Amino acid sequence: MERKMTFRQLPKYEPEKRSEIYLALNENPYDFPDEILEKVFKNLDTVKLKIYYDSPSDELLEALACYTGQPKKRISIGNGADEIIYDIFLMFPDMKFYVCPPTYSCYSIFASATGVKLNYVPLIGEMYEKLNLDKLTKVLDENSVLFLPNPNNPTGQLFEKSDVEMLLSTGALIVLDEAYYEFSNVSYVELLDKFDNLIVIRTFSKAFSLAAQRIGYIMANEELIEYYNSLRLPYNVSYISQQLALAALENLAYFKKRTLRIVQERERMKEILSKNGFKLTDSKANFIFILAQDDEARCIVEKLERQNITVRKFEQGIRISVGKSEENDLVISTLIGKSEV
Amino acid sequence: MERKMTFRQLPKYEPEKRSEIYLALNENPYDFPDEILEKVFKNLDTVKLKIYYDSPSDELLEALACYTGQPKKRISIGNGADEIIYDIFLMFPDMKFYVCPPTYSCYSIFASATGVKLNYVPLIGEMYEKLNLDKLTKVLDENSVLFLPNPNNPTGQLFEKSDVEMLLSTGALIVLDEAYYEFSNVSYVELLDKFDNLIVIRTFSKAFSLAAQRIGYIMANEELIEYYNSLRLPYNVSYISQQLALAALENLAYFKKRTLRIVQERERMKEILSKNGFKLTDSKANFIFILAQDDEARCIVEKLERQNITVRKFEQGIRISVGKSEENDLVISTLIGKSEV
Repeated sequence: MERKMTFRQLPKYEPEKRSEIYLALNENPYDFPDEILEKVFKNLDTVKLKIYYDSPSDELLEALACYTGQPKKRISIGNGADEIIYDIFLMFPDMKFYVCPPTYSCYSIFASATGVKLNYVPLIGEMYEKLNLDKLTKVLDENSVLFLPNPNNPTGQLFEKSDVEMLLSTGALIVLDEAYYEFSNVSYVELLDKFDNLIVIRTFSKAFSLAAQRIGYIMANEELIEYYNSLRLPYNVSYISQQLALAALENLAYFKKRTLRIVQERERMKEILSKNGFKLTDSKANFIFILAQDDEARCIVEKLERQNITVRKFEQGIRISVGKSEENDLVISTLIGKSEV
Repeated sequence: MERKMTFRQLPKYEPEKRSEIYLALNENPYDFPDEILEKVFKNLDTVKLKIYYDSPSDELLEALACYTGQPKKRISIGNGADEIIYDIFLMFPDMKFYVCPPTYSCYSIFASATGVKLNYVPLIGEMYEKLNLDKLTKVLDENSVLFLPNPNNPTGQLFEKSDVEMLLSTGALIVLDEAYYEFSNVSYVELLDKFDNLIVIRTFSKAFSLAAQRIGYIMANEELIEYYNSLRLPYNVSYISQQLALAALENLAYFKKRTLRIVQERERMKEILSKNGFKLTDSKANFIFILAQDDEARCIVEKLERQNITVRKFEQGIRISVGKSEENDLVISTLIGKSEV
């Protein structure tokens, strides 16, 4: 056949080859614990595997309600937080979508996939730490949707609650992406009591070491959750993934301890690198961000690569996921040159 | 806040409450085997849970290539076959979409979710067994997409290969939904060698008892697969689901034996019910379809409900999933009235 289909040109998400020390995707350096995994498996109800299992199960909804302090009707789940973001583009076909770069790269990838044109209002400030409120309050209205990671990705900084409230009062739908919430311990989810134009997204991929199992959740007012549930795939999260998420929430203390260890490592890295002349943002996530452009940034990335350490370069700097203590030591010594001593 | 968002009105997919004998969703009556499940768990690489795991993994692609006889470059996977269908609506924003009712109900649900207008060319024949080729060849062209389950759902009948070839020669993209392939043992996937406008979809939800784990796969020419991969969620199928699919393919003989048992039960039900005056389609799937309208159909459904058996009513008749032998016995005796003796 000579026929040739025409496709939209889409940016392809190509994961890199994994190096020995892979600090490019903000994954948790610690494994999901074997003891919990084994318990989940011992308690699996085999009968459930063959059926179309409720997504979300009532059991998981209860646990999420307990964890977040939100009523069950304000919660649903997704095939990773990414599916929720993807579906939000589909939920509002007539609205204008905004992001504030530097920001999470999948926003633009999923916008292309769903045929949405994305509008950009870059962050301002020497550290890209501030929302351009002047511009945002001018362009945002009830026909707008703004995606905002908080802490921001890739810089890790938190936005002020009062700034977020100001954005909400424009009437725009604000999608707060709290993927790194457990590392910042700051959430604005309680604003749901005051605003019906807020969506909060979270994930089990980061603090709970379950990136491969694809479980995120969405919180919003009941009406938005119902709309999301009617639009998404009806069975979007697998039975075993839901059981693992449940187990994670049942072992919160364990995960909190590990999260704290990562936070302490993050602060240690920030301190040592700052002392040694690097300019870092005040990241509250499980990664650090070194401000550096072009030549300087490339030089740093290559230095790390020679030690088999993979990090991510952005236009504004370098994002390095916080790894295990010994991995972070190697990052530090490579960067400050002590390994050459 | 007084603000009120406006949403599109979407049909809601509301799963029913599960009765004791639930034969409404064509699930496999036999559990995914404990021995295989245990082996998968013993061999799980815990390190993989915390990372963004390749979807599809090369390992699973190899196994699928071996199972289907297609090269790896013609294969990808989805979060259930449903995600693939959902994404096909998004892949071709400028094309006209067609289905031939009675057909799979999710086509219209996912069309609404993705904002696509669906066009209908109903099946013809006393048993809804024939494609309306006259009409289809008139309306289909290179700007069309046709979804066609084969065997058809809900009637279970197979369409002729020559008819499918005729549809392909219109230049339209034909999406053959072979979700029930293992029960019919008939596939037209080899037409991929001849046509570049064919997509074949399959699933692990039916013959492999893994509906709750959400794994489907798509086969098409390399260019279409690349486009699908650039549009879908990058990590759409979880690590454990991929491992379970792999294990299923490694134990094919086991699943084939069970599939045969279901096929034998299907034929037994068809024979007894036909002998007792019911009009059935020649289903090649894991369900039977009794032609009956309105009052008659409702009466049958209610009769079964009184025995705690849930089936699915359509405009054209009643679809009953083939269950375990004793469940099928109860369906038969309820329908032919022997339970009242």
